[in-house]
Amino acid sequence: MQPIGVIRSPFSQHEDTPIQPIYAAGQRGTVELEAPFREALADLEGFERIWLLYYCDRAKPFEPRIVPYRDTEPRGLFATRAPARPNPLGLSAVRLLGVDIARGVLDVDDLDVLDGSPLIDIKPYVPAFDAFEGRVGWLERGLDRRRADGRFEPED
Amino acid sequence: MQPIGVIRSPFSQHEDTPIQPIYAAGQRGTVELEAPFREALADLEGFERIWLLYYCDRAKPFEPRIVPYRDTEPRGLFATRAPARPNPLGLSAVRLLGVDIARGVLDVDDLDVLDGSPLIDIKPYVPAFDAFEGRVGWLERGLDRRRADGRFEPED
Repeated sequence: MQPIGVIRSPFSQHEDTPIQPIYAAGQRGTVELEAPFREALADLEGFERIWLLYYCDRAKPFEPRIVPYRDTEPRGLFATRAPARPNPLGLSAVRLLGVDIARGVLDVDDLDVLDGSPLIDIKPYVPAFDAFEGRVGWLERGLDRRRADGRFEPED
Repeated sequence: MQPIGVIRSPFSQHEDTPIQPIYAAGQRGTVELEAPFREALADLEGFERIWLLYYCDRAKPFEPRIVPYRDTEPRGLFATRAPARPNPLGLSAVRLLGVDIARGVLDVDDLDVLDGSPLIDIKPYVPAFDAFEGRVGWLERGLDRRRADGRFEPED
């Protein structure tokens, strides 16, 4: 695994960063790819959304149970989207506004990612592959919290 | 990045493996977690689907343009879900049938993953976070191909 670029966003700290793209309308930023990967952006224009996979480089180490933003009691880490994961990968379906292949820059909206996060992968969002209905366990009764705080920052 | 477990599926080679979970109904398997990560499965029961992130360990190296399964001409890699990525991570929203925390085993359906693929992360699928509509670029006119072939296997 190697970073292939970087995500530039308005958010420099966990505190007050949207916890998901659906709470980040109007939060624009860019995805900047390193040169060897720019040609692979061809044909991406025309997709309304893209998946960003990125390294949560400012998350505290893995803990098997954490109190997620949308609850007040501990939950198993894999039943949450919290960043304190064994492999701290974030996954965000952001809105694609523009593609500049020559410069290797994507303009995006609905961005819920910390500024400077290392980019790991980009995939097209395909509703036929990615959109499902279904039960959501403890989240059925989850809090309507939309912004992060400092709970997943490292201890020092 | 470190494998946290392994995915067991009916598919031992790319040839004839479903290319997405929507084409894999009835294809059951298991996700087996290593001991340090099992407690983090708490509260996962009750989610209808989960995201599996896994390492595509039998994919050919990165190429910026490839002919995807659903087209006959080359497309930019990031505009496809093909495994020949700079960081070859697969992403599949599979159906969760059962959770055995003590043994660290998940029973799943709709599995489109090669047997033995190293597991990187599990996230709950949350329709409110993950389900969107929208345009899909070149895939609007894509072929209705549902099974893989050997085109993304390494050369030797």
